Amino acid sequence: MKSDLPIGIFDSGVGGLTVYRALHERLPDERFIYLGDTARVPYGTKSLATVERYAIENARFLEARGIKLLVVACNTASALALPAIRGAVGVPSVGMIETGAGAAVRESEGKRIGVIATESTVRSGAYAHAIAKLAPDAKVSERACPLFVALAEEGWAESEVARLVAEEYLRELREADIDTLVLGCTHYPILRRVIQETVGDGVRLIDSGDAAAESVAALLEESGLRRRSFGTATGQLLRERARAGRLCDDLDHFYVTDAAERFARVAERFLGSAPRVLEAVEVWGHDELHTGK
Amino acid sequence: MKSDLPIGIFDSGVGGLTVYRALHERLPDERFIYLGDTARVPYGTKSLATVERYAIENARFLEARGIKLLVVACNTASALALPAIRGAVGVPSVGMIETGAGAAVRESEGKRIGVIATESTVRSGAYAHAIAKLAPDAKVSERACPLFVALAEEGWAESEVARLVAEEYLRELREADIDTLVLGCTHYPILRRVIQETVGDGVRLIDSGDAAAESVAALLEESGLRRRSFGTATGQLLRERARAGRLCDDLDHFYVTDAAERFARVAERFLGSAPRVLEAVEVWGHDELHTGK
Repeated sequence: MKSDLPIGIFDSGVGGLTVYRALHERLPDERFIYLGDTARVPYGTKSLATVERYAIENARFLEARGIKLLVVACNTASALALPAIRGAVGVPSVGMIETGAGAAVRESEGKRIGVIATESTVRSGAYAHAIAKLAPDAKVSERACPLFVALAEEGWAESEVARLVAEEYLRELREADIDTLVLGCTHYPILRRVIQETVGDGVRLIDSGDAAAESVAALLEESGLRRRSFGTATGQLLRERARAGRLCDDLDHFYVTDAAERFARVAERFLGSAPRVLEAVEVWGHDELHTGK
Repeated sequence: MKSDLPIGIFDSGVGGLTVYRALHERLPDERFIYLGDTARVPYGTKSLATVERYAIENARFLEARGIKLLVVACNTASALALPAIRGAVGVPSVGMIETGAGAAVRESEGKRIGVIATESTVRSGAYAHAIAKLAPDAKVSERACPLFVALAEEGWAESEVARLVAEEYLRELREADIDTLVLGCTHYPILRRVIQETVGDGVRLIDSGDAAAESVAALLEESGLRRRSFGTATGQLLRERARAGRLCDDLDHFYVTDAAERFARVAERFLGSAPRVLEAVEVWGHDELHTGK
């Protein structure tokens, strides 16, 4: 049955695991296939054309494995490449931007919304555009925070360095008196505590992974793609793990395009447990020298 | 004449510009072609197989453009892929590791040598191995410093954050009482001042770019590849720019595999001037879906 197929998730690397966790918590009965494009991470400093190309390769790889729905967990890929992805694969695709923007507009009382994201996401203006479509009077302030990614991966989320970096990055947003802040990069929820302390308790943080999980749940319900067959052996296992709240077990498959060992290490830092089924794959074409343009 | 050909330099991104500067200062009469693989940067968290593949593509791209010598400015590519590069191209290749290790052994009195580099370079043990070959009794302490790259690119080299990060990364090396420290990643010379202050004036810093420039100069001399034809129009221009100490002018060509605008911006931060001739190219093959292994 199509509804028994897993949900595909791709990210430029390990950051999308925060989205996997959010999906897993919201949809404990579903199975997931995760692809981290660790050979080409990060996307956040790359161009539109390159991010589109990588994103399409990732989406097709997951589609070829049999999925019922695709979650583009990478904010940069969502901001730059969602139309291209939708043109390239047949399954419905959910990105981070519209769902994150929607949640921000719903939560923000004063419509003074901050967005922190990668350089490429900020430069694309995708969040500002999506927010303006929903709330034309909203005031949006954006800031790229590239060091947050390295801090999260290094395991320094609670360090004095993280506090100082957050102070520096978030100063302008505080001065803009925002009441809501979108964590517009999958790594940033790892630094959630430091970010919240820096902007103050009065500012509501929007985790775009949580928002996307809500959106995916609704879409599955509407389209009749929610998993229903619990009589099967897999169904029983899913019920069990939902009760136990287990992440990263045999039922979910993880692929990376490079450096699986490092992925597992950082995954453990992010989720508390490393993937049980983790495989290194290639998602791109053959390598030939291309010296001309 | 073959000696009139430019010297090729490649790096995973913008960091190799510190090596370009060192080469330029040491060999002001030479022309350079620089390739920054900005579509696939960074290499420092990637695997041996992937770094080899990228490095060979870069080396072949430069060789096809006509160079007399190749400088592998990226420490990670030097550590992991120099034998593969030498097998793939016909021109002589100079990497960062042996030259950096050689300089460290020469400069270190107590043979207590520290090495800071990317995760992949440290994990490869290439510096420790190269130092042990030259000085079997040397004590080598290594440390990966991933945040230094982001700090350098962000323009935060002189910040309180940089000081705090350096304090954290370099603590063990200080405790190991090193007398010499190899800056084993092209980005680190940008943070030279903070690093020196943190380890103290008693520790000699080895910039592997400077060491490589010496090695390249010697190799050109020995092999008769040093540029000699100054009667030509280009020769005159080279003499002029050597006198003026200009970097990044029309005589040197810069290629990037992505995001040329960002490269130019960071180049200006690193060198004080942005490349005059900067072109985005592809160095890899055609893109076809590859779903199997």
